[in-house]
Amino acid sequence: MFSRKHLLGLDGVAQEEIISILDTARSFREVLERPIKRLPTLQGKTVVNLFYEPSTRTRISFELAEKRLSADIVNFSASASSVKKGETLIDTVRNIEAMKIDMVVVRHSSPGAAHLLARVLNAHIINAGDGGHEHPTQALLDMFTIREKKGRLDQLTVALVGDISHSRVAMSNIYGLRTMGARVLVCGPSTLIPRHIEWLGVEVYHNIDEIIEQVDVMNILRLQLERQRRGLFPSLREYHNYFGITRERLERATRPILIMHPGPMNRGVEISSDVADSEHSVILEQVTNGLAVRMAILYLLAGGKSEIH
Amino acid sequence: MFSRKHLLGLDGVAQEEIISILDTARSFREVLERPIKRLPTLQGKTVVNLFYEPSTRTRISFELAEKRLSADIVNFSASASSVKKGETLIDTVRNIEAMKIDMVVVRHSSPGAAHLLARVLNAHIINAGDGGHEHPTQALLDMFTIREKKGRLDQLTVALVGDISHSRVAMSNIYGLRTMGARVLVCGPSTLIPRHIEWLGVEVYHNIDEIIEQVDVMNILRLQLERQRRGLFPSLREYHNYFGITRERLERATRPILIMHPGPMNRGVEISSDVADSEHSVILEQVTNGLAVRMAILYLLAGGKSEIH
Amino acid sequence: MFSRKHLLGLDGVAQEEIISILDTARSFREVLERPIKRLPTLQGKTVVNLFYEPSTRTRISFELAEKRLSADIVNFSASASSVKKGETLIDTVRNIEAMKIDMVVVRHSSPGAAHLLARVLNAHIINAGDGGHEHPTQALLDMFTIREKKGRLDQLTVALVGDISHSRVAMSNIYGLRTMGARVLVCGPSTLIPRHIEWLGVEVYHNIDEIIEQVDVMNILRLQLERQRRGLFPSLREYHNYFGITRERLERATRPILIMHPGPMNRGVEISSDVADSEHSVILEQVTNGLAVRMAILYLLAGGKSEIH
Repeated sequence: MFSRKHLLGLDGVAQEEIISILDTARSFREVLERPIKRLPTLQGKTVVNLFYEPSTRTRISFELAEKRLSADIVNFSASASSVKKGETLIDTVRNIEAMKIDMVVVRHSSPGAAHLLARVLNAHIINAGDGGHEHPTQALLDMFTIREKKGRLDQLTVALVGDISHSRVAMSNIYGLRTMGARVLVCGPSTLIPRHIEWLGVEVYHNIDEIIEQVDVMNILRLQLERQRRGLFPSLREYHNYFGITRERLERATRPILIMHPGPMNRGVEISSDVADSEHSVILEQVTNGLAVRMAILYLLAGGKSEIH
Repeated sequence: MFSRKHLLGLDGVAQEEIISILDTARSFREVLERPIKRLPTLQGKTVVNLFYEPSTRTRISFELAEKRLSADIVNFSASASSVKKGETLIDTVRNIEAMKIDMVVVRHSSPGAAHLLARVLNAHIINAGDGGHEHPTQALLDMFTIREKKGRLDQLTVALVGDISHSRVAMSNIYGLRTMGARVLVCGPSTLIPRHIEWLGVEVYHNIDEIIEQVDVMNILRLQLERQRRGLFPSLREYHNYFGITRERLERATRPILIMHPGPMNRGVEISSDVADSEHSVILEQVTNGLAVRMAILYLLAGGKSEIH
Repeated sequence: MFSRKHLLGLDGVAQEEIISILDTARSFREVLERPIKRLPTLQGKTVVNLFYEPSTRTRISFELAEKRLSADIVNFSASASSVKKGETLIDTVRNIEAMKIDMVVVRHSSPGAAHLLARVLNAHIINAGDGGHEHPTQALLDMFTIREKKGRLDQLTVALVGDISHSRVAMSNIYGLRTMGARVLVCGPSTLIPRHIEWLGVEVYHNIDEIIEQVDVMNILRLQLERQRRGLFPSLREYHNYFGITRERLERATRPILIMHPGPMNRGVEISSDVADSEHSVILEQVTNGLAVRMAILYLLAGGKSEIH
């Protein structure tokens, strides 16, 4: 059962709530294989996509999910906005809400932006990424993908590899996977792993080869290349040598490892092209599943109890 | 009865036409309170939103109004446009019209842009702001809001406060309110009030405290902060001291004053936060009413005589 | 009969395929004269408009064509995209396709971009312009317009005037018109005509006055003003003197010449205003026909065999 008003993060979301979302998403995943993919769920409802950070895949994924549920959609991106005119975020969203909208999908560079909106607005809020804090729909689609492929989430070992410090994807995955009973490892250079991260119930590794034999799943995070300028890693080549996931590295594993990446990939940096395109990679399935998960969230927040058929 | 082909401004629009728009808007205002807000009025019709100036709230308000009437929508903003390629405005819109569109909502920095389009196109034209000239839908939503709150427009005293010189909102309000029989005061520094504005039937004041006791409504205009550089007022602090609407100032009034602002607000400049958020402020209601008024305009221009139910 | 999966160009497209497209477009051209222009053809199908180059008219024309066929639409333009994040074109479109979309309309500065997408994606691909290579829907709408006006395409002489070297419009027109049996002349300064273009079955002229008496149709190409900086022509005035189509020039013709331009026009450069607005100009009809042709392409690629009624 999922009866929240908002989806702000996975921190504190219970196991049965996550299961409810993933089960609902499975129904929508089947809808996506049909020739006609449109359902009337959100007909006459208005969803505002409020993107204060540039985004392609998350924005398009939400937009498509909303369209397939027949919502009316308003897109609002920072560049075309009152932001330049110095209006506060709260005034902007209060104004948008005054237009009698039903849901807001928000991406913002400030941690807590979605929580702020949830406090001041009556609309349903979905966090599509708030600074380095959470990106719950990404973690849900990651978990959905793992569960479809492995049949379960508990008793699995999942490694999050790369830049943990700046990754809202990592944070939401840690919350969700731990709640679901998975063992979670994080692996990356010490400059890119937050201190005390083990307090969240994860194990910390700095040597990728040490974890290869332990893991069922590797979720390889995007390396923000601009971190290099700040001295957080010496060079792309060196990063690739130490942490890049390559076919040679994976061959040391005794069993197949599910390869995931939230995209967009830096091929040849955090992941080699042959791994990205290998038979164990589910990177494109993650994208498809993302659509199903977002349809499920929209459906559940709108109070969806009707049959999905 | 409203049987115009275009809405270019309120100059010359008769009292019974304005009443017809406001009455129609009231029906749509009720529609906005329903769970399902979509009507089939403009099904199969195409509306082009042609925005040559950046805009958030007006653009989104029109877009939502169009969606709720089931129009097909094409958004055209200057940045993504042929403007860069040096094509004339007329060639651009003739091209757009050749695609068999039905209505154009236009915002442009040049006064008269909407009139120009009305002369060369067969489509219905709605002026969403043309330079410092007119912004009729804003004035209509302001009048709608006053009428809902005060029950009438005649025998009221309405003050427009701030930068009158550069305000198309002020111009359209003056035309509309005078037509409806309201007494209209304008109040601001002499550098921001056009000479001979009293020829339009308004009274000019330069001291805000002189008008506090006379007015039923204050429509507080946004101060364009860039005017300061041009020496039109000395500093934001000084502007606030002389013309900012604060709780202290309003307490001198013997009766409650309806507080309006077309947004986006500069809190602490032309209006203090406590006034903006006070029980007499209808600033967010203006936004909701704007949607209803724009639905009414679209409906009436499309020849709407059918029941709104 | 047209049973291709993609429309990548007109090179190699057979006469009967072109006729099939033009005939289908004629049915849609009639639909455009109706008050309600929406058909359910693409209901529940998703079309992605992937524009890596700025475009107004082509993008809006496709978007309107898609809306009128009731498609769900996702707009993706380079500026708001992962392009900045360094993702490859293939990764971007594979991701978009993973969202279970049905068609991609692509414009890109690289020749062959549409072909590349057709190789890696399962979706239907429509080339909306790839570098200097092809722009097949423009040529189809040009041919549609000629055929409607002249009743045929064979046994006509069509001149393409101006910058042939950088024109995908010219290339697609040459392929299509030659296939349909028209005689094709190209005319422009030698710096703007590719060497060996006559290998494509066209005749090359450098003196506009020499061809005036021979042609039934003039398709006047847009002069990219930035070519001047690269020394490809001396000045706009000189270009206009030698190649600009003016009323005086046309008066030397013994029969009326159909005047076409793909837009946006540089009035007073490649075409004078009186010619652009003359009774022989079908420039705005080209735009309307473009919509019908694009609806036909979308319809046929989607496997359309149903009645258009």
